[in-house]
Amino acid sequence: MAFPSLPQKIEIMEVCPRDGFQSVKEFIPTEHKVAIIDGLAGTGISSMEVTSFVSPKAIPQMADAADVMAEFKKKWQGKVTSIALIPNLRGAEGALASGVDWMNFVISASQDHNMANTKRTVDESIAEMEKVAALKGSTKLRVSVATAFACPFAGPVAPEKVLRVIDRALEAGADGITMADTIGTADPKYVTSTLSVIRQKYGDYPFTLHLHDTYGMALANMVAAMGLGFASFDAAAGGLGGCPFAPGAAGNAATEDMANMAESMGIATGIDILKVLSVVRTMESAYGLKISSHLAATKMGRDGGEGSCS
Amino acid sequence: MAFPSLPQKIEIMEVCPRDGFQSVKEFIPTEHKVAIIDGLAGTGISSMEVTSFVSPKAIPQMADAADVMAEFKKKWQGKVTSIALIPNLRGAEGALASGVDWMNFVISASQDHNMANTKRTVDESIAEMEKVAALKGSTKLRVSVATAFACPFAGPVAPEKVLRVIDRALEAGADGITMADTIGTADPKYVTSTLSVIRQKYGDYPFTLHLHDTYGMALANMVAAMGLGFASFDAAAGGLGGCPFAPGAAGNAATEDMANMAESMGIATGIDILKVLSVVRTMESAYGLKISSHLAATKMGRDGGEGSCS
Repeated sequence: MAFPSLPQKIEIMEVCPRDGFQSVKEFIPTEHKVAIIDGLAGTGISSMEVTSFVSPKAIPQMADAADVMAEFKKKWQGKVTSIALIPNLRGAEGALASGVDWMNFVISASQDHNMANTKRTVDESIAEMEKVAALKGSTKLRVSVATAFACPFAGPVAPEKVLRVIDRALEAGADGITMADTIGTADPKYVTSTLSVIRQKYGDYPFTLHLHDTYGMALANMVAAMGLGFASFDAAAGGLGGCPFAPGAAGNAATEDMANMAESMGIATGIDILKVLSVVRTMESAYGLKISSHLAATKMGRDGGEGSCS
Repeated sequence: MAFPSLPQKIEIMEVCPRDGFQSVKEFIPTEHKVAIIDGLAGTGISSMEVTSFVSPKAIPQMADAADVMAEFKKKWQGKVTSIALIPNLRGAEGALASGVDWMNFVISASQDHNMANTKRTVDESIAEMEKVAALKGSTKLRVSVATAFACPFAGPVAPEKVLRVIDRALEAGADGITMADTIGTADPKYVTSTLSVIRQKYGDYPFTLHLHDTYGMALANMVAAMGLGFASFDAAAGGLGGCPFAPGAAGNAATEDMANMAESMGIATGIDILKVLSVVRTMESAYGLKISSHLAATKMGRDGGEGSCS
């Protein structure tokens, strides 16, 4: 049996500064965030989710969103595309004022998770997203469909619920769509099933996948998605991440693990894996962040290679 | 695109007491080993690699092989199939004297790794295996082809080298064959490529796969193998494991992660995952072993479930 045809190259967006940092309870000083972001921006990635314009009451870690964005723009504007998560119109106003390239509006396909995450029904979030779309101007809008495969409260999520959010986002003028396995319970068979429905309806629209690695299935799910031609993925350096409002959600697929597998399979990522590892080392040693990537635990990661990574 | 057809059920052999324990530097007292083995034997698995009859100079951790086997037989003989690793004829003598059900003779497809692992050439190991086969009597013999995909020293291993060891093992009367990704660098595309060659030559012979998770690809590789009809896997509770003679090798795929993904995909394993988690917890809390499974780190593992595992 031949392996399914794979993309020649994939795009990996670095989301550690948003999805990773938000999972850290103790406030990471702004200058530490900026140092890590600078390191990650220089690894060859083309886009980064830099921060989140959310209520500091909901996520105190992101209270310095405007400052972090300002620092990012000084060095990386025009070199690395910036994106910021927004949960609502107020977030959009903050993001637009910061001059971010893309806003990332999150709507859960599952009502239960959307209520827990945003205190809104799905329809209310869609209405809010439409307001954001109306005032985005030249700033791009990505809509992320959270719990696109499973919900921590309601279990498996019917593809129809995902399609509905995607339809409304595209109608509203969204420039990109992400589907998120928020809690990481999707398995490769389930991912293939839902993504096949998506492919059938939207052809080769360039969706992005956001795969959490809670149960260790993120890379297997990535392979399943690539087999269907999906070529855009979120990942977080060091495997950091988690959703404070999704019980059981753990870290993202680690950027270095994802890039390593892709490159091993002959799929270009543009990412300098050793540079990512170097930043991850610093995140751990200098800033005390808890790392969970496989590559960071290998001899290659620790000692710079002993011929063990063929 | 439909997902490739998958086995309805798979067999998972628990190898933590051999491959897991051998990676632990400090000697695990025999009574601790026996307590863990008893716990794992009661999780619904049908076979277990209980120990290794190797030189205690090479691997001091296995110095109590005969005692461990004797304790295992007292409680589990006839209920859980026992297997013991043997690197040579002397190991076979010890294993046969212990009354083990299966012996597991390891030969690397790669000359470099075979020299490092056994201080023999591949041909010398094959000759030794033939001697073991000649005296096995009613005891079953499994031949494990180490570095069947990649070698820590020589890089990718040509399938022809794997076929050669398999041919000689089958000619000698081996009752089972395992192919091992000793260092965990194989990716799903590479695994599919080598296993397709194997399928083409040996039809539906029930090979076993032994997949290390060094780079986080073990579950993705398992999916690739299941897509080709392979239905027998080794795994180690808690993700313990590693080869002292293969730089960079890290733990096995964790039994609980492997079983969780399989069951999620509708593939029966017969394993009580919560029981495995309970033993893994004890391995960590009572015996200080370093656990690296995803499931053990989830809320489900820690708190017995919060509805997050759909």
